[in-house]
Amino acid sequence: MSILVMKFGGTSVATLDRIQRAAKRVAVEVARGHQVIVIVSAMSGKTNELVGWVNETSPLYDAREYDAVVSSGENVTAGLMALRLQEMEVPARSWQGWQVPLKTNSAHSSARIEEIPTDNIMERFAQGMQVAVVAGFQGVSPEGRITTLGRGGSDTTAVAFAAAFGAVRCDIYTDVDGVYTTDPRICEKARKLDRIAFEEMLELASLGAKVLQTRSVELAMRYKVKLRVLSSFEEQSDEAGTLVVGEEDIMESNVVAGVAYSRDEAKMTLISVADRPGIAAAIFGPLAEAGVNVDMIVQNISEEGRTDMTFSCPIDQVARAEKAMQDAKERGEIRFHDTVADKGVSKVSVVGIGMRSHAGVAARMFKALSAEGVNIKVITTSEIKISVLIDRKYMELAVQALHDEFDLDKPAAESV
Amino acid sequence: MSILVMKFGGTSVATLDRIQRAAKRVAVEVARGHQVIVIVSAMSGKTNELVGWVNETSPLYDAREYDAVVSSGENVTAGLMALRLQEMEVPARSWQGWQVPLKTNSAHSSARIEEIPTDNIMERFAQGMQVAVVAGFQGVSPEGRITTLGRGGSDTTAVAFAAAFGAVRCDIYTDVDGVYTTDPRICEKARKLDRIAFEEMLELASLGAKVLQTRSVELAMRYKVKLRVLSSFEEQSDEAGTLVVGEEDIMESNVVAGVAYSRDEAKMTLISVADRPGIAAAIFGPLAEAGVNVDMIVQNISEEGRTDMTFSCPIDQVARAEKAMQDAKERGEIRFHDTVADKGVSKVSVVGIGMRSHAGVAARMFKALSAEGVNIKVITTSEIKISVLIDRKYMELAVQALHDEFDLDKPAAESV
Repeated sequence: MSILVMKFGGTSVATLDRIQRAAKRVAVEVARGHQVIVIVSAMSGKTNELVGWVNETSPLYDAREYDAVVSSGENVTAGLMALRLQEMEVPARSWQGWQVPLKTNSAHSSARIEEIPTDNIMERFAQGMQVAVVAGFQGVSPEGRITTLGRGGSDTTAVAFAAAFGAVRCDIYTDVDGVYTTDPRICEKARKLDRIAFEEMLELASLGAKVLQTRSVELAMRYKVKLRVLSSFEEQSDEAGTLVVGEEDIMESNVVAGVAYSRDEAKMTLISVADRPGIAAAIFGPLAEAGVNVDMIVQNISEEGRTDMTFSCPIDQVARAEKAMQDAKERGEIRFHDTVADKGVSKVSVVGIGMRSHAGVAARMFKALSAEGVNIKVITTSEIKISVLIDRKYMELAVQALHDEFDLDKPAAESV
Repeated sequence: MSILVMKFGGTSVATLDRIQRAAKRVAVEVARGHQVIVIVSAMSGKTNELVGWVNETSPLYDAREYDAVVSSGENVTAGLMALRLQEMEVPARSWQGWQVPLKTNSAHSSARIEEIPTDNIMERFAQGMQVAVVAGFQGVSPEGRITTLGRGGSDTTAVAFAAAFGAVRCDIYTDVDGVYTTDPRICEKARKLDRIAFEEMLELASLGAKVLQTRSVELAMRYKVKLRVLSSFEEQSDEAGTLVVGEEDIMESNVVAGVAYSRDEAKMTLISVADRPGIAAAIFGPLAEAGVNVDMIVQNISEEGRTDMTFSCPIDQVARAEKAMQDAKERGEIRFHDTVADKGVSKVSVVGIGMRSHAGVAARMFKALSAEGVNIKVITTSEIKISVLIDRKYMELAVQALHDEFDLDKPAAESV
């Protein structure tokens, strides 16, 4: 029998009714002869509630306890989904991360998967179990503590299971019917893509397009997992959703495939840093150790041996970034005058493999933003993407302007 | 160093503020030189919410999935309590049942504790950890599935830890400041007892007094665990609360020590059962196997070889009781005309070791109820208690009438 992985995100299991609807989709695939591994997220809002409690209790929390608390939401959904399938006469049981076991390293709250032994679940499949409902987002460390894979980690769980079990496909059920040129909630001209390249999806995901988590796309690309994104709220045909495929399978493409954004960014500046060789390592080493996900980095022109160093990170990591910098200062590893955090910025990016063969994309982007009066604070570029940090109040405006500028409402063939 | 067990119930950890208040109590005991094992319940209301979801998803649920779902509430509290203690500079970590591991049998949703190995936690104490925060109510089966100990199982967890670790005392923090002659919420004359005998506490607990779970008192009595019930909402002296002690330590006692009630009972009657030797076993065997906690049993006078068999059980077990009876009927093990369930009854009981040496308590009880027009549906008695099943609408009235009848608002010495 072939194994299919189906992943249901938080909005797809937000209520008991939605869990039932998702269970029906699973039952359809079981009836088609699949053995199904279902990966579930926490009910929508639950993880945020738990994270809020942790932050309120301890702003600089012990990540091991964070993981123990926030992983509980997925356990609830997994049990309820198994019960619902049993009610439909589909043999199912729930699995928590430590029961599989999904083995990770000890990097709490952003752990990496190290191994998924298949024997426990395969044994139950051999005994007639048709569905394994797995709590997403969580695993167990070598020390026997609960770990989590970072926000959105259930996508990564799903792809990792698909790779480990040699699944025929990994279907990611979510609240949108596929991957769009940008978020339809803030740009009504957004258009669904039938296909997108792994590389583009990777950039969009890492840039904050919330359809798929970055690591899940990396993992799918590396293990050649056939990945499909589709809606849990619509009747599905076999052609539904968006297929994420290799670049060679994309016939036509726009120069820019999509516009992504990340709303809750913070810009942090170290004022008047003593500039010397190795200073970047002395700054970003402690930040990495403190678990701060530094994204964009800008070093201003040095004057008289001192410089300002600016970087961006998620808003909720500002407190620990400041602590890491003050600690490093007290240890004498770096010298600086002060830290300034701007929590009011967002990141907007354009992405497309077509940028490799088309010049002038950056100029068009900056011009379009300028025409709307949007001031650019930080710029970074790569081979297939350009990102800018701007004031948060301009975020929606910027996304819409760039979507227009690159004609993303029209399919590729017409826009050539 | 001496080990102290402190248990905080759902209302004592209902909010982040209350978790903080509980953590302060723990810090006081740490400052006194104790190594502390804290047992926590789920935040008030959480377990009920989870149980509701399970029942709605699957009325005849798979108890293994029930356990996987409902145990999640305690994990949240344990992590938050550990974080709060860390914020107070008290070295603490959380332990889920499978991490200790608290080993139980496989009787899901009402599992028995089989063993609590102390080495993992003692190793951490030896390394300087001062507090182990343990998620109550849960354990792990020989098959590696999560089990729960039944409602109120966190008390049992606490006493079992106190016994396993040779704790100097087991303090049960709750929303009342001790054990009362009856529930102060329904009888304003209720009076706090300074001491109560294990035997009386056992009857009160098994009869629905929600201060302590039956099994926790049994366990405390068997292992001679010094047990104290006290409020988490008041400043505490060393004399606070109620001590649960051996009968020999009680100098004076009223004939009746307390009045207990259990609100959500159901009365189920099998109509016209074919009466034959072994019929009781044929009925109550399948009920036990189905996990129905049968409480009171009455067999009506037999006419022409047929009889009505009545028993009581918790309301939420009526569905499975009916199914167990229909299944047994279909298998030809028992014959009856029909089942009738009355979900509108409550149980009210009077308890006291003084009843052993005083006659006429039953007569006083029935007379007092009769004077209030309360109809008695089922009666059971034991050496130190008398219980009656009555219509739920009379429950509060009955409790108050019995409290008055036996002068429970007056201390023992005065009432002699």
